[in-house]
Amino acid sequence: MKENLKRISEDQLFNFINTALITIGLPQDNAHIVAKLMTQADLIGSDAHGVFRLPQYTKRLLAGGINKTPNIRIEREKNSMAVLNGDNAMGHLVMEHAANLAVKKAKENGVAWVGANSSNHAGPASLYARIPLEHNMIGIYVAVGSGNHVPPWGGTDLLLSTNPIAISVPSWNEPPIVLDMATTVAAYGKVKEKLQRNEEMPVGWMIDGEGKPLTDPKKSSEGYLLPIGEAKGYGLALMFGILAGTLNGASFGKAVVDFNADASSFTNTGHFIIAVDIASFTEVEGFKKNIDQVWTEMKGSKLMPGFNEIRLPGERSHQIYLDRTKNGIPIHENLKNVLDALSEQLNINKIY
Amino acid sequence: MKENLKRISEDQLFNFINTALITIGLPQDNAHIVAKLMTQADLIGSDAHGVFRLPQYTKRLLAGGINKTPNIRIEREKNSMAVLNGDNAMGHLVMEHAANLAVKKAKENGVAWVGANSSNHAGPASLYARIPLEHNMIGIYVAVGSGNHVPPWGGTDLLLSTNPIAISVPSWNEPPIVLDMATTVAAYGKVKEKLQRNEEMPVGWMIDGEGKPLTDPKKSSEGYLLPIGEAKGYGLALMFGILAGTLNGASFGKAVVDFNADASSFTNTGHFIIAVDIASFTEVEGFKKNIDQVWTEMKGSKLMPGFNEIRLPGERSHQIYLDRTKNGIPIHENLKNVLDALSEQLNINKIY
Repeated sequence: MKENLKRISEDQLFNFINTALITIGLPQDNAHIVAKLMTQADLIGSDAHGVFRLPQYTKRLLAGGINKTPNIRIEREKNSMAVLNGDNAMGHLVMEHAANLAVKKAKENGVAWVGANSSNHAGPASLYARIPLEHNMIGIYVAVGSGNHVPPWGGTDLLLSTNPIAISVPSWNEPPIVLDMATTVAAYGKVKEKLQRNEEMPVGWMIDGEGKPLTDPKKSSEGYLLPIGEAKGYGLALMFGILAGTLNGASFGKAVVDFNADASSFTNTGHFIIAVDIASFTEVEGFKKNIDQVWTEMKGSKLMPGFNEIRLPGERSHQIYLDRTKNGIPIHENLKNVLDALSEQLNINKIY
Repeated sequence: MKENLKRISEDQLFNFINTALITIGLPQDNAHIVAKLMTQADLIGSDAHGVFRLPQYTKRLLAGGINKTPNIRIEREKNSMAVLNGDNAMGHLVMEHAANLAVKKAKENGVAWVGANSSNHAGPASLYARIPLEHNMIGIYVAVGSGNHVPPWGGTDLLLSTNPIAISVPSWNEPPIVLDMATTVAAYGKVKEKLQRNEEMPVGWMIDGEGKPLTDPKKSSEGYLLPIGEAKGYGLALMFGILAGTLNGASFGKAVVDFNADASSFTNTGHFIIAVDIASFTEVEGFKKNIDQVWTEMKGSKLMPGFNEIRLPGERSHQIYLDRTKNGIPIHENLKNVLDALSEQLNINKIY
């Protein structure tokens, strides 16, 4: 992050993505929602999940791997749950729809859980977990990752993805606490970012078929992402896969399509979101002030030798957001080259 | 596990616990529920959470730290949620009540989330996550642990507990998949078990104030349990603490009472359970057969060098259950000595 990277404004980034998506053939309202969420991903520092993914999404949209004009619909519904059929839409559209529906149902019933099948990669998990925040709700989001990079613990067959979870909790004066984590030590997007930047991976991210450390991102397809806590991370990835995939009639296990290797197959990606209405549980202002108190307690802890601060989940992301909304979004030069090629392909203006 | 330990039958164990609890002063129906759940904990191999805990529970019940004659009641309620006031009851009573209420609400509304405050330690997380299984539901249980052994990542103040999660999913012919894990590499109960057995802890369970490995369980009060995936496990413990504690009006952070060090203070322990009605999402038999397929896929993976099998979460526990229901429950001789002292104290028959 020491590099002096060129920065572009939020509007510049939004317009570039929006124009690309409309040129590809998305309806204007859909393009707007996706471009807004992808820009948001870059603003909050999810560099591997914002405009970085546009070339890949473009490839899939043009190859027919993603439906440009979907009809997202409710397949099953009760008071506190629903299953959406995403009609193979961009995952952003499906999960924004799901999050809004969950908020509506939670307002009436206290808690709601909305799952989806027939969806696609939707960017960073925290984007959707954050949607309930402005309604004084807690958000919980879980997804089946879009490609298997993890074997069951003790095995070598790639049967699991990094299946991430995000949880967001609103506070009073402090930023919300927002956890967004893969169930592996590193998310696969981080590996892809290292590859694009020609950087080595740290030991502990991946192992090879012998169980030895793998640090060259060019060899990532020969290796395995390590789950957090060994068998525990495997257990979480497995359970999240069942809840976000199998339960919704979406892909899990062998059925997961690697969207890095294949641009046209139907992925049937699954996710779910839970909205928890704080007012149903307790008094909202008091709760939010208690979350401020959590900030104070954690940050006030004495430090372990070798550390100079304690961070809350989402704190770094919030600092990046403040910086980028003010000073613009940095674009790595390798990413710029890829986006320039995309501009030529689509015959649209370059990002800058 | 190579030791030739004395084994006792399920009935013998149940009767011992039941008699102890009635002698202490629990109403017969309450004693029965707690004894049944504690026996179940030993049957499924949660050795640190079954009869092992009886002396500690006894101490708290006799010192007034737990209410022997509680009135567990609904504090808040909507279609898909409730908050129970546990009236400082044994946690087993509160969470059995919560799980049954969640099942009832999920049957009507699809999904239900029931939290509790004013509760206590309830034994292994999986006990409650398993309750929805027989109703063709998925169970998810989260608790604030009964004592802080974890600092925020980078700190040394003990502000977090091992805050565990359990998730259970029913299958067709195979055993259910049941994940039950602390958000630390080792649960604190495992440390207590090592202490009672005079065994060293493996490197990686705990660190000391300098960040160096701590392996002597007698020194555990000077050290810190390590979260899984470093900052990620810290993030999970934090979020689970907010969801199971703060949201329910229960203790979290500095407010958590260490029930190992203090027998009489009100702990205000919080937990929650989610019941997910499979039939609301999909066809039950097909779903369960898909979970059998998950077993087949995972266990069919090629093996990493150094491993001789792949296990599903809950598989070992299921094998232990089959063994112990048939051959009895092993009682470590140090545990026997502690239970004999308890028998003398309560003037009841020894366990054997």
